[in-house]
Order: sequence, then C-alpha cells, then structure tokens
Amino acid sequence: MDSSKFPELKNDSLLRAATGRSVSRIPVWAMRQAGRYLPEFRQVREKHDFFEMCRTPELACQVTLQPLERFDLDAAIIFSDILVIPQAVGMEVKMVPKQGPVFPDPLQTPDDLQKLNFSVDVHTELKYVYDAITLTRHRLEGKVPLIGFTGAPWTLMSYMIEGGGSKTMSKSKAWLYRHREASHKLLGNLTEIIVEYLSQQVVAGAQLLQVFESHAGFLGRALFNEFCLPYLVRIRDGVRARLSALGQDKVAMTIFAKDAHYALSDLAASGYEVISLDWTIEPQTARKIVGNGVTLQGNLDPCALYAKPERIRELTNAMVTEFASGPYIANLGHGMYPDMSPDGLAAFVNAVHETKIIA
Amino acid sequence: MDSSKFPELKNDSLLRAATGRSVSRIPVWAMRQAGRYLPEFRQVREKHDFFEMCRTPELACQVTLQPLERFDLDAAIIFSDILVIPQAVGMEVKMVPKQGPVFPDPLQTPDDLQKLNFSVDVHTELKYVYDAITLTRHRLEGKVPLIGFTGAPWTLMSYMIEGGGSKTMSKSKAWLYRHREASHKLLGNLTEIIVEYLSQQVVAGAQLLQVFESHAGFLGRALFNEFCLPYLVRIRDGVRARLSALGQDKVAMTIFAKDAHYALSDLAASGYEVISLDWTIEPQTARKIVGNGVTLQGNLDPCALYAKPERIRELTNAMVTEFASGPYIANLGHGMYPDMSPDGLAAFVNAVHETKIIA
Repeated sequence: MDSSKFPELKNDSLLRAATGRSVSRIPVWAMRQAGRYLPEFRQVREKHDFFEMCRTPELACQVTLQPLERFDLDAAIIFSDILVIPQAVGMEVKMVPKQGPVFPDPLQTPDDLQKLNFSVDVHTELKYVYDAITLTRHRLEGKVPLIGFTGAPWTLMSYMIEGGGSKTMSKSKAWLYRHREASHKLLGNLTEIIVEYLSQQVVAGAQLLQVFESHAGFLGRALFNEFCLPYLVRIRDGVRARLSALGQDKVAMTIFAKDAHYALSDLAASGYEVISLDWTIEPQTARKIVGNGVTLQGNLDPCALYAKPERIRELTNAMVTEFASGPYIANLGHGMYPDMSPDGLAAFVNAVHETKIIA
Repeated sequence: MDSSKFPELKNDSLLRAATGRSVSRIPVWAMRQAGRYLPEFRQVREKHDFFEMCRTPELACQVTLQPLERFDLDAAIIFSDILVIPQAVGMEVKMVPKQGPVFPDPLQTPDDLQKLNFSVDVHTELKYVYDAITLTRHRLEGKVPLIGFTGAPWTLMSYMIEGGGSKTMSKSKAWLYRHREASHKLLGNLTEIIVEYLSQQVVAGAQLLQVFESHAGFLGRALFNEFCLPYLVRIRDGVRARLSALGQDKVAMTIFAKDAHYALSDLAASGYEVISLDWTIEPQTARKIVGNGVTLQGNLDPCALYAKPERIRELTNAMVTEFASGPYIANLGHGMYPDMSPDGLAAFVNAVHETKIIA
C-alpha cells in the first residue's frame, strides 16, 4: 500500500495543540480507546489471539477505527502493544486472559542478554506494525490524525526481567542496583531499536508518536535520571535526526512517564513536545513546573468513568478548565479498563468538547 | 501479664526524634523488619500459618524480636497484619504463599456491608494483638521502644473490595465514584474500630503508633481529600482523646501514605507527629513542604538493599545527610522484600549510625 499519498487531514486540532498552536476545540482521545471495554472489540478478540490481532494489519486497523465510530474523538492510536519489541529481539510473550502478558523465559542474569538479537532488522521483523499504520491512515480518510507509539527502554527492560506484571519491579530494579553496566547495555540496545522503529512508523504514516514509560513510578529521581531520562532524550533526538535523514517531515512526540511526579521539570527540558500526566498530578502544579512551552496531556482518573455521566461531566469540565490556560490535549491519566462502560467514555469526550474555554 | 510495670526504656532516640527533640544518634528501623527475608523467620513460618503466628502472642513476640538480635535497630514493631481488622468484622482472609492475602468472599455491593459486624468488641476479638504487645514489651527489657500499627480505612476498604492485590484498585475506586455514601459509611465504621484498636495497643504497651495508608497512591488529591484525609485526622484526634479518657500518656503517631506525593502539605497539617515517606519523594522537597515542625521518616528505595554493601552505605549516608537538617527517623521507603539479604539491611542500619550529622 502506498504510504506517500494519504488523504488530506480534516481535523488537525491534536497536531496543533501538540505544537502549541491555537485550536478551535480542545482535542481529546483516550489511552487504550481501542480495547476490551468495547463489545465490538471483544467480538474480534474472541476469534483471534491478542498478538495475532497485532500482527494482522486488517484486524489491527479494524479495532483501531472502532472507537471513532462511537465517540467524537480527535485522534486514533494504532492498535498494537509495547511488547512487540521484546518479541522482535527474540523473547516469547504470551497474552494470558485476566492476567496480562507473560514471558515464559524472562531474563535472569546479564548472561541472558546474549540470547537476544539486537541486530534484528526492524524493517522486516516489525513490518506488520508499519503495514497496519499505512492501512489505517488510508482508512481514516483524514478524519483525525493517527498516533504511533512504543514502550520506553526501562519499561520494556522491566517486563523482560519480571516476566510479567509485578507489584514492586524488585527483580528488574535489582539489576539497576546490582548490574549497572548490563542494564545500560540493555537500555542502550533497546533505545537504538526504538529510534528506528518509531521513525519507520512515521514513514508508514504515523502523525504523532507517544513513548510509554509506564513503569517510571517504581523508580525514584536518582534511578530515573540515570536509567530513563538519558534514553528518553536519545529517543527524542534520534528520531528527529533519523526522520531528517529519511527526508521525512518531523512529528511531535509525547512522553508518558506514569507516576513520575518527581521528573516533571526534567521532562519539560527533554525536548518532547507533549508531556502526558497521570491523574495524581494536579493540573496547576504541572503547569507551574513545566511552563507554557510544553503541551500537557491528561489526566482524568480513569476510574472517574465509573461515575454517573453527570459527575463525569463535572469532573471533566473542571479538569479542562484548569489545564486549558496553556497548550493542552485532553485524555485520561491512564488507559481504559476492560470493565468500563462505553457510556462513560462518551460522557468524558463530550464534556471536553462542551467545556467553554476563556483563553 | 501485667501491662503497667514495664522495664525502663534504655534507648529513647526513636521517641525523641518523633517528637522533635534532640537525639544522640539518628534512630533507624525498617518496615517489615520481622519478615521472610530472615531465615529464622522462615523457620517459624514453615511450621505455622501466617495468621496463626499473628494470633499466638508467643510466636508474634518471637519473630518481632528476631531482627533485634541481628541489627543495631532503634525500634521493634509488633508482628501483626493490617488485615486483622477486616477479619475482626467478619471477613475471611487467607494468606496464600507467593500471592499475598486473599478474601474468598470480598465486598461486591453496598448491600454486603450488612454482613459485617461493626459493633464487634475489639477488646476480645483482637485481644491476641494486645497480648502480643504486652509480652513483647516485657521481653524487650527496655532495649528499644515498641511500635504498634494499623491499616488506614481506605487501604482496608480497598482490600475488602478487591479481595486481594490489584494493579489499579479499580473495583474499590469504583465504589468511591459510584457509591459515595456507602463508601463513607464503611470508612467511618472502620475509623471507629481503628481508634479503639490503636488506643488499646497503647494500653497494652505500644509506645508509638503507625497508620499505613498503603494504597493512597491509587487516588489523586481530590479522592484523598474526601476519602482518606478526614478519617486519618479523626483517627489522630480520636486516639488522643481516647488515651486521655483512659488516663494513658499520649504517644506519637506516624502516618505513612504511600505514593501520596500530592498530599504532603495536607498531611503536615493533620496532627501526626511523623510523616513516613516512600522513596519517590526527595528529602529536600519533603522538608520544604512540611517544614521543621513535623518529623520525617524514610525513605531509601528498598531495592537499594540489592546493591553491594559499599553502595548501600553511600546511598544511605547521602540520604541521612539530606534529611537530618530537621527531625528525622531513618527507614526504608517501603517494607523489606522476601528475597532480600539480611546483609543489605545490616549495611543500611550501620550506615545510618555512622553518618556524621552537622546539626
């Protein structure tokens, strides 16, 4: 499929807000907006394995577009998973219902790094993601922009060592304290792959890139500054340079370092255009720290969607009003949960768009 | 056993630091210092169920004293569990190895509150805790003070609804958004029980009380201010009033609201003498927010204990130096994990005591 001639973009409010330009309405989308909370998603999922869906561009495209049929959203985000990179370097990952991702053979010692193939050709190995992006960008017909994404190095490393979810990330944090050199080697290798992976997503049609450092909150500032921040900056700078070398227009990039309240000022200086916030950070506190030179994204407590629509509306109106004194993209502070009602998300999206902004 | 004539206290540095008085050395202890990381604890645990250990004063006393044999600690904390209160009001809780606590029959709807017995007589139902405290206080022979503790209302409520651990606490948070009145009823009832429970711990011999709001970080500031803070204040004020009515000397109280970085200034005004910090909060940031009128406790990343002793020493020296400009109790930012080495804790404790403080 041709990735050079895409339909003209009709709603650019997300891209404008991401680069600090004025918007005619506050853009809104929701992390994990294509997911199990939608009956039409569960219908597809019943017939297909999770990673089969990721690897089949037609299916990934189908579920990416589903929430846009229901809600007045300002962005699509390609259906995929952050763990496609550990898979690409040779690790097995299974998605176990009601449990999440499981690595049958996680990394145990630094010697295990030798088992990984960091010289993998991401052009062929992750081609299915680029194909899904190109197909979806066409099928969107310019309705809204398409977001690409990746897991950040530390978050991928922690999954690769823990072998799944963890309440403490103590095994992977033990590497940071005990195997400092091996940790930097792993993080550096993942960073190189991520730079190429994100750049190729843009070549394929992604119009904004989000980097998920989902496990930032397990670290404190010292570990974050040593094992996350330098790699996040290298990703930002690396993608910019690589896109330039590829003759591609640059795209805005978003960093979501969940629960990294301690890192806000450092992230503001990291070169990312957008900082996505979890719900524990107050809008005005964040704005005071990052200033108006960075776009903020977020951050309604996802569990607020369990409330009645009228209450969702109140909470959303209040949040948007507080954030909208500076460049802003409305979102949740984390992804949708499987047991949520689509009506909750509808109430959220509509409340964003109805909020009167006095700029 | 007589709870009126206890041996004279020889090391009061914990109690002095907790109330802002000068100390000859920085007091140090570790959350979960009596636990599975100790081979001698595992020996006892092999022969006894977890809650049987809690309910048998001789066993609870034995494991409470174990870490004091190995390390130069300035406090003992009674071996018990925050879930003894849900048990006391009629819920079944099992401790499943490698999984943690499991409630076979968690609360599902507000109607389920009727199944709970909030008028339980905590004097008889939790007598085993008081007996363990009295026995341990005698056996300590005044070596160090004995700390009593409880789970805070929201943290207990979330366990009672989730039925065990959760990555999101989405079921219990759904109550806060959807069943506001029932949530307040449950939290209020738990608060009343906690006030009496803590007061009776003091009657039995506890010399400082710590309240664990372990699940604070799942909430943002708005939910915390509605569903946590007022109950934490009621506990603080209630215990003070109850101890006075009982003719008991007052004791210092510590609040540990894990991951509640957004609540520091509110906690500083809540009446607790000590605020215990998780490791994501920088010492100087915390001190700036709370001032010198409150004692800070914490907050080394527990995973730092996986490092080599020399590195633990460096990290601990740096932390103590930063904190010790104000009243301070050294601790970890969370409890010991089962796979840690006792040598790591030894390095931490010794590093605290060797740190030169220029006050």
